[in-house]
Amino acid sequence: MAKSTLSELKKEAFESNMGVFESGLVVLTWGNASALDRSQGIFAIKPSGVPYSALKWQDMVLVDLDGKVVDSTLKPSSDTLTHLEIYKGFKNINGIVHTHSEWATVWAQACKSIPVLGTTHSDHFFGEIPCIPYLSESKILASYEKETGIQIVDFYNKNSLNPQYVPACLLGGHASFTWGETSNIAFQNAVALESCAKMAFLSLNLNSKIEFPDYILKKHFTRKHGENAYYGQ
Amino acid sequence: MAKSTLSELKKEAFESNMGVFESGLVVLTWGNASALDRSQGIFAIKPSGVPYSALKWQDMVLVDLDGKVVDSTLKPSSDTLTHLEIYKGFKNINGIVHTHSEWATVWAQACKSIPVLGTTHSDHFFGEIPCIPYLSESKILASYEKETGIQIVDFYNKNSLNPQYVPACLLGGHASFTWGETSNIAFQNAVALESCAKMAFLSLNLNSKIEFPDYILKKHFTRKHGENAYYGQ
Amino acid sequence: MAKSTLSELKKEAFESNMGVFESGLVVLTWGNASALDRSQGIFAIKPSGVPYSALKWQDMVLVDLDGKVVDSTLKPSSDTLTHLEIYKGFKNINGIVHTHSEWATVWAQACKSIPVLGTTHSDHFFGEIPCIPYLSESKILASYEKETGIQIVDFYNKNSLNPQYVPACLLGGHASFTWGETSNIAFQNAVALESCAKMAFLSLNLNSKIEFPDYILKKHFTRKHGENAYYGQ
Amino acid sequence: MAKSTLSELKKEAFESNMGVFESGLVVLTWGNASALDRSQGIFAIKPSGVPYSALKWQDMVLVDLDGKVVDSTLKPSSDTLTHLEIYKGFKNINGIVHTHSEWATVWAQACKSIPVLGTTHSDHFFGEIPCIPYLSESKILASYEKETGIQIVDFYNKNSLNPQYVPACLLGGHASFTWGETSNIAFQNAVALESCAKMAFLSLNLNSKIEFPDYILKKHFTRKHGENAYYGQ
Repeated sequence: MAKSTLSELKKEAFESNMGVFESGLVVLTWGNASALDRSQGIFAIKPSGVPYSALKWQDMVLVDLDGKVVDSTLKPSSDTLTHLEIYKGFKNINGIVHTHSEWATVWAQACKSIPVLGTTHSDHFFGEIPCIPYLSESKILASYEKETGIQIVDFYNKNSLNPQYVPACLLGGHASFTWGETSNIAFQNAVALESCAKMAFLSLNLNSKIEFPDYILKKHFTRKHGENAYYGQ
Repeated sequence: MAKSTLSELKKEAFESNMGVFESGLVVLTWGNASALDRSQGIFAIKPSGVPYSALKWQDMVLVDLDGKVVDSTLKPSSDTLTHLEIYKGFKNINGIVHTHSEWATVWAQACKSIPVLGTTHSDHFFGEIPCIPYLSESKILASYEKETGIQIVDFYNKNSLNPQYVPACLLGGHASFTWGETSNIAFQNAVALESCAKMAFLSLNLNSKIEFPDYILKKHFTRKHGENAYYGQ
Repeated sequence: MAKSTLSELKKEAFESNMGVFESGLVVLTWGNASALDRSQGIFAIKPSGVPYSALKWQDMVLVDLDGKVVDSTLKPSSDTLTHLEIYKGFKNINGIVHTHSEWATVWAQACKSIPVLGTTHSDHFFGEIPCIPYLSESKILASYEKETGIQIVDFYNKNSLNPQYVPACLLGGHASFTWGETSNIAFQNAVALESCAKMAFLSLNLNSKIEFPDYILKKHFTRKHGENAYYGQ
Repeated sequence: MAKSTLSELKKEAFESNMGVFESGLVVLTWGNASALDRSQGIFAIKPSGVPYSALKWQDMVLVDLDGKVVDSTLKPSSDTLTHLEIYKGFKNINGIVHTHSEWATVWAQACKSIPVLGTTHSDHFFGEIPCIPYLSESKILASYEKETGIQIVDFYNKNSLNPQYVPACLLGGHASFTWGETSNIAFQNAVALESCAKMAFLSLNLNSKIEFPDYILKKHFTRKHGENAYYGQ
């Protein structure tokens, strides 16, 4: 691949990493974003444990879809194998974001899926945000990060969920992953998830019996997504 | 209309759009503001889906009261027909703001009106902020955004609400609209609504039996509004 | 009084006004601060309804203890008579701050006093922050702002509260007033009140039966206040 | 000790003090950080009551492990003796941070320990964050700050807690202390504590019966700490 293309990929991943940091979705080093060039089978991801305030786009680590570091002396994110398995399992996804953003993590720690309660959620996610159960001890001991990715992909397959329709999930006891056709869309979904998580928590506190109609969910999702979308330029 | 006047109108709409963004009432592109020149029957509104960080005042789209774009290659906000119906129904209103600000949206998702619990609310809204029920499926399929505006105006008419006394409403399952004599006042009402929504939620959590006296509501509203107002310069 | 002294007084009031704004205790124009020169019987206060973003120290309005504007073409804060009555009633107070800061206002709207639950509260307030009942309709019709100040002073006198020991109160259905030997101390007390109000709300949510010992309250208050204080330089 | 080394120590303490301030963990002067050079038995700590906005690294006060001020005309933090006792009791600790950060203080005021509910907590703290009971009146009257430090160290010893595994505690009715091998790590633990305190509060509100598995706690803590750690560079 041309050097210039690799630089673009690093810059794309860097922008999403800085996006989650500057939006307050990440504190300390609790999060990472990646961007994939599927034609080359290479993705750029945040280096492990490097403070966001010191991060440069050149620091992004290139990794191939076998999990091998291509060109860096820095170690990639400890969650790299999770990203890799998601890229392998979800074929139309080219960007992934992982954060411990607080309200999404609250739902993950409570081991509850986030129900659809309004149009904000509907604009981004066509159905509830699923919370995937705790990983078993044997999987964690075998290969924690790889098994985490496998568990996400399996969950979507078994439940016939379309990852492009529900581009976010919670991991029980852990936090969230979001994704999208690009790294920037994955970042936007992380922002949307956090806001929807907060509003769902508080809305149910105010009224535990909300029955949001499916036809509004469908209207709002298709207004922004799919062939009849008319939102945006 | 003179070009200079059209530019002023665009700048006014731009200022309110940036106001809601910089006040944290809007994340991503979840919101839009408009400003109307009633004498010419033209309003300026945010273009659809354009990120706030990239917005320029020249991007504002001019639309006439038949819903026709006057001068732009950009598409206006997908909520343009809602703005238009409100302008047609509420004759003294020249500015409208729509946001998914979190606490107001929480009340909307819970399908509950915000009661008057204190003087902060009374300074801006002469009575509860009504939550208008979910739109029916047939209206959503017919013309979602236009029917949303009609539903708001009808609700005010049927309930004998004065839109200048209660310049904010919630849409069940959706979010909020605020308005005012100018776009800037509509923006200020959006700020006030969000703060009142948060404080009402928390106040009722602390004391579910608040009985705020009507005479204080009346005193505070008339201190700021109407012919005997003595607040401000 | 020398012009230079008057300028200093305006600057002092201006600093406290900007302090509450920049600390997020005030949104829109919901608040005001004043500074008194007791030897001259003149205080400087925010002009009514002027946006904080446009405020200059020269805009502060000088008012004497009869309520007469001394030198300005701007109208003083609509709450000026409340400040005046507090200055007349509390003889060691030379600075007052009024805000609708959200958590303090939540307690005021719930008509509840804020109990002492920890050392943060104890460092600033020697006892609970009282919530003063709704003003009667006749007092509000007679002279709302003046009666508000009288009600505060009367409440402290009737309940034998020392305004220097409890330099903050809530007004039922309204918001908060804080004060101090200087306008800057009144501002610091407004910051402390807001944080204590938030933490008290949440602490009681987690444990409704907190019994904070009086001896820790006493230790912390006297560590910072009075003749045996040893906190600070 | 060489002057240059003392300056480095002051700068290290200064950085952590500014860190807690800029991260919003401290308002007004409610907090302090210190850094110890154990080989020399000297630590640098924030001066008492000095506003953070005016703080310079040169203001840090050097104190020896007998509690004597080494070189300053400024008084050290009123909590200096607490820092000193912790340094004496926890031999591998060279940095301490004390803050009244709001969510941690909420747990302290409620006199409750923070349970382990997820991986964010597990990454930093190998077990619950203990809340140490109110100090007795006699200890407070004898030597409040010194006894506070002794109580922390005693609590860890009696409960066989390893201060490096659980580098944070709450003081009943007061607030939090965190520590670490360096002052910067103590600061990071203060950030982590605040976020975990908030998320634990809200998670239990959503689901009061969370059973987070011990094997995930162990996996996450050892991923970042100890000889088999593989997180970071």
